[in-house]
Amino acid sequence: MAEGKAQVLIVGVGGVGAMAAYALEIGGKAEVTAVLRSNYDAVAEKGFKIDSIEHGHDIKGWRPTHIRKTIPDVAQEKLKPFDYILVTTKNIPDVPPTVADLIAPAVTPQETVIVLSQNGLSIEKPLLARFPGNPVLSSISLIAATETAHGEILHDDVDAQYISPSSSPDVPSDVAEAAARRYIDIYNACGKLDIRYEPDAQLARWRKLVYNASFNSVAAVLRMDTARMRASRHVIDDLIRPIMQEILAAAAAAGYAFPENLPDKVIRVDPTDTAFKPSMCQDVEKGNFMEVENIVGEPLREGEARGVAMPTLRTMYGLLKGLQLQVREARGLWEPTFAEDNPYK
Amino acid sequence: MAEGKAQVLIVGVGGVGAMAAYALEIGGKAEVTAVLRSNYDAVAEKGFKIDSIEHGHDIKGWRPTHIRKTIPDVAQEKLKPFDYILVTTKNIPDVPPTVADLIAPAVTPQETVIVLSQNGLSIEKPLLARFPGNPVLSSISLIAATETAHGEILHDDVDAQYISPSSSPDVPSDVAEAAARRYIDIYNACGKLDIRYEPDAQLARWRKLVYNASFNSVAAVLRMDTARMRASRHVIDDLIRPIMQEILAAAAAAGYAFPENLPDKVIRVDPTDTAFKPSMCQDVEKGNFMEVENIVGEPLREGEARGVAMPTLRTMYGLLKGLQLQVREARGLWEPTFAEDNPYK
Repeated sequence: MAEGKAQVLIVGVGGVGAMAAYALEIGGKAEVTAVLRSNYDAVAEKGFKIDSIEHGHDIKGWRPTHIRKTIPDVAQEKLKPFDYILVTTKNIPDVPPTVADLIAPAVTPQETVIVLSQNGLSIEKPLLARFPGNPVLSSISLIAATETAHGEILHDDVDAQYISPSSSPDVPSDVAEAAARRYIDIYNACGKLDIRYEPDAQLARWRKLVYNASFNSVAAVLRMDTARMRASRHVIDDLIRPIMQEILAAAAAAGYAFPENLPDKVIRVDPTDTAFKPSMCQDVEKGNFMEVENIVGEPLREGEARGVAMPTLRTMYGLLKGLQLQVREARGLWEPTFAEDNPYK
Repeated sequence: MAEGKAQVLIVGVGGVGAMAAYALEIGGKAEVTAVLRSNYDAVAEKGFKIDSIEHGHDIKGWRPTHIRKTIPDVAQEKLKPFDYILVTTKNIPDVPPTVADLIAPAVTPQETVIVLSQNGLSIEKPLLARFPGNPVLSSISLIAATETAHGEILHDDVDAQYISPSSSPDVPSDVAEAAARRYIDIYNACGKLDIRYEPDAQLARWRKLVYNASFNSVAAVLRMDTARMRASRHVIDDLIRPIMQEILAAAAAAGYAFPENLPDKVIRVDPTDTAFKPSMCQDVEKGNFMEVENIVGEPLREGEARGVAMPTLRTMYGLLKGLQLQVREARGLWEPTFAEDNPYK
């Protein structure tokens, strides 16, 4: 395995997954198997069409080495083990199937390295519990890449990533670190990117939450873009800023300190001349499930468990769970209990 | 004036206003002038059609003595002064025109008694400021009455009211009390209702806020009916109950104590077998302005001014103001400032 190309399975091949597939394969050190869902037919027929800030604006007809519609069952299909599984799907632990359930048939125990490129806190916990002998890595990505139509990718902000090993009782830390460094080597082989090793993922995850727990969650509840949010004093002063302060307090209690002026900086991060709607807002508008637990629930539980008062985020959590329940009901996964045994009747 | 029928102007003749007009006129002690807006043509042509739990289920073709489309200008139209102006419109002080602006041409200084049948706290303040010599009464109404189609009224919960005088430096308290008692006498003349004198409106207003600040505001943000809200633990435990506790704490700080089990009682007040959406939720779904300030903003300011922490309601306030801004923008009354002078740029 070490002498040949690394076998990489990518699950979730929208914008972020497609750009990872492209970078990994053009580097020459990886052979990618991409699991495509809604875009399978388009990519099978015409390949990906990519407009990339880093790889070129007019890439046409490119395909990963292998494309398929379903998660491979390595044992049953008698496949070579995957060295890496990169997961870029949304992470919605409150709605089955979980990420662990989804990828289980493709994971070779003790061998396959799982790379999570997903938002939020504690996303590695269920994977470590399910696959205790497998290294689990975090990719904290700053990329902006969206699939504008089936198979068409607009990659308009740099693919910078921090790769961190998770600590697991059954994986020696040097093994986990080596898995991370090899992944970085394979990825950077394309020669155009800046993928770095970061020993502690939590710092970067808390940092991303300053934006996601505030702008992303408020945008979802209000169905409002960030430019309008910034133009509204109430939204900034009653919602965004208090949530950011609560996240900073929770991070500090967990041992991660950030500069005091971070909220002011993050409030200015999105451009005001375009109407950008963060992911949870896009999800709620499309009737999709949102990443409520990892973006809001987990930092809330982490902070409250350490005695940090987080009433603004607690309120947002209740509202987002209410919205999530409406998605559940629309998909026939929940029925309100109006009967006498309703606990609040 | 005292020997003849009381001249009563009713502004806002939906369900509540129409039932007031009916009760006042059939009692024989009042002559009603009703200002109709969207339902003018229907009522002018066919009168009101009323299905009332108290007055009869098959009332057809009834009209108040006078109907008109605009607020009368008493001076310009050389009308008799109105003894009472009953206002049942929504109260939205953050969107002009205010109630005071609206009724000003119909108010005869020192003489006309203003009766506010509206939700929320402090609604009397701008009226007292604008018409310092006129008695201002509060009607806290428990009626359920809705206009199901233009001119068609379903009155399905009893028209019980508490009438309270507001204290004003320029109106002797015995004059204000007499105005309240006369109004009660005129209204009760129909012989079917229970309209009572209540010396202190604030107690009843805080009591109503326990429901309105919680269920009404959360329903608006989630666009969710109360039965579904009750079926969701997150909605009840993260949102409804904390808001109720904050309202009770603010009320206590203002001198109004309620029994500790009030939240449990109020949580059970709506039926679970029908999907009832409170007024603010109906408003937001129709793209109408909501009564944010009097239902949420005022109790929040009253509580916080007395040092009561109200973080859940503060969060709801920020969200509701964000939604209100979207209504403003949809009506061309607000444009987001994306320019460099944006305070958050």
